[in-house]
Amino acid sequence: MPPTPDARVLRTRHDVLRAAIDVLVEEGWDAVTQPRVARAAGYAKATVYAHWPDRIDLLRDAFARYGDMPHHEATGDLRTDLVGELVSFRSAMQEHRLDRALAVLADRAASVPEMVPVRDAFVAEGEGPLRALLAVVPDPVVREAAVLALCGLVVQAVLLHGRPPGDDVLATAVDVVLRGLP
Amino acid sequence: MPPTPDARVLRTRHDVLRAAIDVLVEEGWDAVTQPRVARAAGYAKATVYAHWPDRIDLLRDAFARYGDMPHHEATGDLRTDLVGELVSFRSAMQEHRLDRALAVLADRAASVPEMVPVRDAFVAEGEGPLRALLAVVPDPVVREAAVLALCGLVVQAVLLHGRPPGDDVLATAVDVVLRGLP
Repeated sequence: MPPTPDARVLRTRHDVLRAAIDVLVEEGWDAVTQPRVARAAGYAKATVYAHWPDRIDLLRDAFARYGDMPHHEATGDLRTDLVGELVSFRSAMQEHRLDRALAVLADRAASVPEMVPVRDAFVAEGEGPLRALLAVVPDPVVREAAVLALCGLVVQAVLLHGRPPGDDVLATAVDVVLRGLP
Repeated sequence: MPPTPDARVLRTRHDVLRAAIDVLVEEGWDAVTQPRVARAAGYAKATVYAHWPDRIDLLRDAFARYGDMPHHEATGDLRTDLVGELVSFRSAMQEHRLDRALAVLADRAASVPEMVPVRDAFVAEGEGPLRALLAVVPDPVVREAAVLALCGLVVQAVLLHGRPPGDDVLATAVDVVLRGLP
């Protein structure tokens, strides 16, 4: 049986958004145009324009699809789970080219207002599990400082030093934070 | 007395690089071309091309000039100095549009190999005082974790949340790290 029209539409959207992500991480923001993405996905330009007349909507939907990142599966031991989540974050930076996505979002949200909610949703999804683990910290300021410092460590190393933090640095940062909680 | 040719050259370079930084933070990486920067600086295109035939050299020199950021003046009290340095970093993000410079560097160093040493020098200059303060931490892994976590906190908040961290979050992060040192 041929797929129903709905399934075809879903498949098209899936293929095009997947291709949009690939073009984004490999060639950058400016390359994500309907013609370029259509070529990468193997669809007609007209198909991509029909689904996404506006380029920003294509980028927004691509980031929404992209945001579904693998996370660490919690064990119940806070130290193990914090280290595991940072290791997952580091892996996603490399294996899913999350480094490219975050750099593009940081850069473009400053000049393209439509990308601010996209960046915020993307970052909230990424930080979610770490925030959930640190929900045991009662003081909201301490909690915020811990979340920003631990996520920020990975971001600083990957985006601004160009190299992922070592296992020893991740585990040590978690130990410093856990010992330092009031 | 008219300025000597050397002074004129220095003045021209200063004006053009200042204009290149302005164009960079206001209009982004792609806008930093010799014609656009010449117009912003009030010089002839040919003058800018004569000094910087290659656009990447103009960008590199602009970042080198930009990197001279105000830092906190050390008091000798570690907690005060760490908080002061993070407050300076946060101020530079906003007042000197360091947020734009870092986002551009993070994004472009991934695709323009000539920008990797520029990013590295820029980040090393920025982190320098914090690294110097934390030189009292004997274990290099702990020191690295502390530097990345504290700088990363500011970067995560400004670049990925779009808002600077509050005074309370900065002071709390320093307290957590200092208490957590082994």
